[in-house]
Amino acid sequence: MARSWATFGVDLHLEPTGPHLRRGLTDALREAVRSGRLPSGTRLPSSRSLAADLGIARNTVADAYADLVAEGWLTARQGSGTRVATGVAPTPSRPRGDSGVPPTGAAPPRPERRRPAYDLRPGTPDLGSFPRAQWLRAARRALTAAPSDALGYGDPRGRAELRTALAGYLSRARGVRADPERVVVCSGFAHGLGLLAGVLRARGVRTIAVDSYGLDEHWRLLAAAGLGMTALPVDERGTDTRLPGGVGAVLLTPAHQFPMGVPLHHDRRAAVVDWARHTGGLVLEDDYDGEFRYDRQPVGALQGLGPDHVVYLGTASKSLAPGLRLGWMALPPDLVEEVVAAKGGVDSSGVLDQLTLAEFLTSGAYDRHVRAARLRYRRRRDALVAALTAQAPAIRVTGIAAGLHAVLRLPPGTEEAVVRAAAYQGLAVHGLTPRHRHPDAVTEPLDALVVGYGTPPDHAWSGALDALCAALPSGENGSDLRFPG
Amino acid sequence: MARSWATFGVDLHLEPTGPHLRRGLTDALREAVRSGRLPSGTRLPSSRSLAADLGIARNTVADAYADLVAEGWLTARQGSGTRVATGVAPTPSRPRGDSGVPPTGAAPPRPERRRPAYDLRPGTPDLGSFPRAQWLRAARRALTAAPSDALGYGDPRGRAELRTALAGYLSRARGVRADPERVVVCSGFAHGLGLLAGVLRARGVRTIAVDSYGLDEHWRLLAAAGLGMTALPVDERGTDTRLPGGVGAVLLTPAHQFPMGVPLHHDRRAAVVDWARHTGGLVLEDDYDGEFRYDRQPVGALQGLGPDHVVYLGTASKSLAPGLRLGWMALPPDLVEEVVAAKGGVDSSGVLDQLTLAEFLTSGAYDRHVRAARLRYRRRRDALVAALTAQAPAIRVTGIAAGLHAVLRLPPGTEEAVVRAAAYQGLAVHGLTPRHRHPDAVTEPLDALVVGYGTPPDHAWSGALDALCAALPSGENGSDLRFPG
Repeated sequence: MARSWATFGVDLHLEPTGPHLRRGLTDALREAVRSGRLPSGTRLPSSRSLAADLGIARNTVADAYADLVAEGWLTARQGSGTRVATGVAPTPSRPRGDSGVPPTGAAPPRPERRRPAYDLRPGTPDLGSFPRAQWLRAARRALTAAPSDALGYGDPRGRAELRTALAGYLSRARGVRADPERVVVCSGFAHGLGLLAGVLRARGVRTIAVDSYGLDEHWRLLAAAGLGMTALPVDERGTDTRLPGGVGAVLLTPAHQFPMGVPLHHDRRAAVVDWARHTGGLVLEDDYDGEFRYDRQPVGALQGLGPDHVVYLGTASKSLAPGLRLGWMALPPDLVEEVVAAKGGVDSSGVLDQLTLAEFLTSGAYDRHVRAARLRYRRRRDALVAALTAQAPAIRVTGIAAGLHAVLRLPPGTEEAVVRAAAYQGLAVHGLTPRHRHPDAVTEPLDALVVGYGTPPDHAWSGALDALCAALPSGENGSDLRFPG
Repeated sequence: MARSWATFGVDLHLEPTGPHLRRGLTDALREAVRSGRLPSGTRLPSSRSLAADLGIARNTVADAYADLVAEGWLTARQGSGTRVATGVAPTPSRPRGDSGVPPTGAAPPRPERRRPAYDLRPGTPDLGSFPRAQWLRAARRALTAAPSDALGYGDPRGRAELRTALAGYLSRARGVRADPERVVVCSGFAHGLGLLAGVLRARGVRTIAVDSYGLDEHWRLLAAAGLGMTALPVDERGTDTRLPGGVGAVLLTPAHQFPMGVPLHHDRRAAVVDWARHTGGLVLEDDYDGEFRYDRQPVGALQGLGPDHVVYLGTASKSLAPGLRLGWMALPPDLVEEVVAAKGGVDSSGVLDQLTLAEFLTSGAYDRHVRAARLRYRRRRDALVAALTAQAPAIRVTGIAAGLHAVLRLPPGTEEAVVRAAAYQGLAVHGLTPRHRHPDAVTEPLDALVVGYGTPPDHAWSGALDALCAALPSGENGSDLRFPG
């Protein structure tokens, strides 16, 4: 297999880990097709054998194949494996005529690069419903009212107007015990987590507990800050918060475990705050989608139980848009100075966006937007559940009616095949295992999709749902998969 | 002295270093006055003796005193030292009447907290001239034209529209050899410097060369990243770029040495790029005010001489406003991946500001704004030089006609006294020594002011200039100082 791969002449500069590896493999394969080194019709090695050949995870290869099928570079047909698509590789170059103009028909066909027609990857809200007109109006009001001083180097914690508005909103909507003096604005959750990881490491913390199922990007940030991780079990009551010794902090998603979708049981909520009180440990509460619950009032933030031991982290990335790059932390008092120092002692976020969000919060525009979004996402979730019941009754949706994503449990051993089948339907969707299962996970492996039903714009939603249903097996054991494993 | 200080009952929670120390001291003194623990008329210890008592630098105490004089909490009179101002401390509390309403006149007088009337501290442009209406128009155009995808998680290097607009602008205006693929947007210069410092440290660099005169905030960022510093001499030809062995990088302000105000001599420009080529070292070019030169066309960026060895760093903080938190780097190709990883793999800046700045650059609004600002600052610099010639002929302005600040050389031993005299005039201005002289400086100590003539709004400019002239000694040796040393 190594030989047959080498004959492709594919030069693989692979990064050692994570998404870089997958991206590197995808890029290398795409380039090999584009350049003609992999001619049309070439049958690629199976994902299993290529993975073994390269010494990487099979899912990484399967993901790269799925991406390239979705982009149109490769095709996948039952019984025929994965092949280079027809017409995307250049024809062999011919000598030019004397005129210097290439003879008609000699130009290589333009490879047809297309993005997936449908996107149900989790993590992004419906960007088509971003309230552009209201945001621009608020920006105009905010910038018109702002004193000139507001345009200077500001408080490294962020603008006072925004910290005050956030403290009021978080107290009212999420039960956070927030004092504007202890709110620090950051460029989204990842920025805040990176700052906190650095502070924890500088305080001497060596190990942070994380969920066995979570988000690999967060684990990479923690590892980059020099923190070791211990993975906690996740079950139907959320994260098992019996923390082993030697752990100095724990990262949790109490309102809606990401990605498994269950809230943290109240006994466990109390237990983890007790743990922090007794050990001096720190709880990092990632409240990424706390505003979106459809069956009842959302459970209040864990931070309310122990504001001196819990860091509350929120973000505008799910409620408004990730492109705003706005997040916030409500910090225990003794952490503020260190977090500000970790920010380099300067504010990180543009003052105009900060003032606009403050205006959005205090004018009620934020509440109105969230209410409308909640209704829209709730309808989508209901439509997803109804479609699955009708078309794929073997698929179970786990977790509470909340947030922007759902976990679809699949028959054992079918996850990778379903992701590839989805790619074949022009649908990008994430399997649970490659991005969301911690390498040291103690919870049993599961086959599942993480479906971001909030992601598509309204006009693409029903098409995305149809593509999803077409990719799912309807039988109990996945025997009727639309795509070969 | 320790005893007399202790009797004030001032509880000093002093941070160990830097601006926190000064702020802590200022806050503690202010609180002692506000609470009445330092009654009106109390004579404070001299800055020298309090500094010795607390084991801190005399300039730190003098700065804190000057801040509080400017705020109105303290007064300073020749022959009488520094005292608590009359009427700012509360009168002793009296028992309330039976009605529970305090008897007339019993309420403590509200302390009169005022900021300095005038501000000539360097580092901030005239915020009053920020082009609000044009910016809002550009924001409307940019957000209206943006596809929904632009509001999602974007390229960690920043929006392609902005990187392309910057590459074009920097090539045209500053001679930067910029490729949009190698431009990375950041949250201002400090963010970029912090990212680069981390990358250098991770690459094994132990020591970075800096100027003997520079900005202490930058030195703190480098130190926080674990880099040692070696201080280079600065003379009338700019930084002496003969770099000692063991240095892996050098931070320079080639267009306009900050704060001394001279451009880097062309021999030295060539020499430092040669050094980088031969040693594999990296040059960090801080082009903070390269757009503002008044006597001729600005010298092009050093980066143009060696784009594979020089990182060009620019910022909107001087040309537009620091509150935008927008800066940019043009990177050697082999650094892009590492800098992106140091950013945590995510974009740091709000997409709306990025798209608006791109629109500003491509529509010509940025050029128009910079042209108008250049004219305004040039007039201010001319007025400053003329006023000094007329009213303080002993004071020499050093450096070229450029930028937003000037260095005013003072008679030896007078810097601290002049800063305090300025505070007494209600003027905030920085001395050269405390913030701009590196602890390991090899260049001889100088007494000077760093005057940010760009800072005040138009309506406050002439008042600021008058206050400055009133604080300056007119004689050769400072014997006619308006304020006791």
